[in-house]
Amino acid sequence: MALPPHQSPTGDTTAMQLHTYFRSSAAYRVRIALALKGIAWDAVPVHLLKDGGQQKAPAYRALNPIGLVPTLVDGDTVIPQSLAILEYLEETHPTPALLPAGPVARARARAMALTVACDIHPLNNLRVLSYLRGPLDQGEEAVNAWIAHWIAEGFQALEQMAEGPDFCLGGAPGLADLCLVPQMFNARRFNIDLAPYPTLVAIDAHCQTLEAFQVAAPAQQPDAA
Amino acid sequence: MALPPHQSPTGDTTAMQLHTYFRSSAAYRVRIALALKGIAWDAVPVHLLKDGGQQKAPAYRALNPIGLVPTLVDGDTVIPQSLAILEYLEETHPTPALLPAGPVARARARAMALTVACDIHPLNNLRVLSYLRGPLDQGEEAVNAWIAHWIAEGFQALEQMAEGPDFCLGGAPGLADLCLVPQMFNARRFNIDLAPYPTLVAIDAHCQTLEAFQVAAPAQQPDAA
Repeated sequence: MALPPHQSPTGDTTAMQLHTYFRSSAAYRVRIALALKGIAWDAVPVHLLKDGGQQKAPAYRALNPIGLVPTLVDGDTVIPQSLAILEYLEETHPTPALLPAGPVARARARAMALTVACDIHPLNNLRVLSYLRGPLDQGEEAVNAWIAHWIAEGFQALEQMAEGPDFCLGGAPGLADLCLVPQMFNARRFNIDLAPYPTLVAIDAHCQTLEAFQVAAPAQQPDAA
Repeated sequence: MALPPHQSPTGDTTAMQLHTYFRSSAAYRVRIALALKGIAWDAVPVHLLKDGGQQKAPAYRALNPIGLVPTLVDGDTVIPQSLAILEYLEETHPTPALLPAGPVARARARAMALTVACDIHPLNNLRVLSYLRGPLDQGEEAVNAWIAHWIAEGFQALEQMAEGPDFCLGGAPGLADLCLVPQMFNARRFNIDLAPYPTLVAIDAHCQTLEAFQVAAPAQQPDAA
């Protein structure tokens, strides 16, 4: 069987390992970055639903104390938190750059990425939806309204912040696009109406034409069985 | 009236402006950084409860599209998102450094900061608690249990990640401490039992002995009337 393009050749013991779940939008961000930078890596699947959640297992928590995906392992270095991983990849593999030159442009890119990573995604990930359904005893209608609310709050802001038409900022894919595209995937999965966000839709569509975004997509992952 | 130590002299039109709310832990992070780096700034108070939430006013949203504090204004540059602001300050005012040297150490610091900024704080800020009390019709007992749950999840991880005894990582205050100390303030405000986190308690106590952390504290702000 041919290995998917993002997989390092068998026996490449120097390859980075990414503990990933195909549908995790935080892991998806990192997969795009690895592909853009042409870094060889091996997937270590962490199934968020099987076995009561493999991310909660002690062996995984030894790598990632809060028990969330992704985790990057680069030799002896273990890094949790997708945005910390992206900055690490940027510092260790600077070309092609995920961040523009100059502190002002970099701040704009980070602000867009953080709008996804702090203001949308943490409210709609699995552990939070499980808490709504469990301890708060909310039905699917209330859960879906919750999801839609926080996506709308964030996307309204991002629609104003994004330049477009091809990328969030500037003429090349960067940190903001790496966060936006997985969040658009999530929004579609939850049947969010994207009509109010034409700039975001156009950026997502353009990014989807690039191989790095294609190979990083959830459906292309080995654990997407 | 004597100006507080963080205020720039009247008439200093080159001073940065921070749109801040005394009790916002995201604004508190930035206030510590400005004090550590000795940057002159003026406070522009944004009261999160008055006038139905001044952060929702169109004039503020023109600066900060998602309507959250803080926002930094540096001349013509407007930056939302506290972690984007901290990285901007680090790049424009590198001394004293908030991040250590070397990509591995920097990744560890960012991972701790993001554990607060992505995995704890977004779940417990005002807009989320308002949604729990409003659309989800939750009482104070359920809201307090929600707050305690996400703080415990995050603090258990941070307790493992932190070196201590004085700072999260290394021998000087940095990005992780700037995020931890305001989150400890929030935890105390919500009466969270901190006994399970002796390393975090020790770090917080040591940071509180430093002037930069003292002048940045909520009670010291001009809008803490």
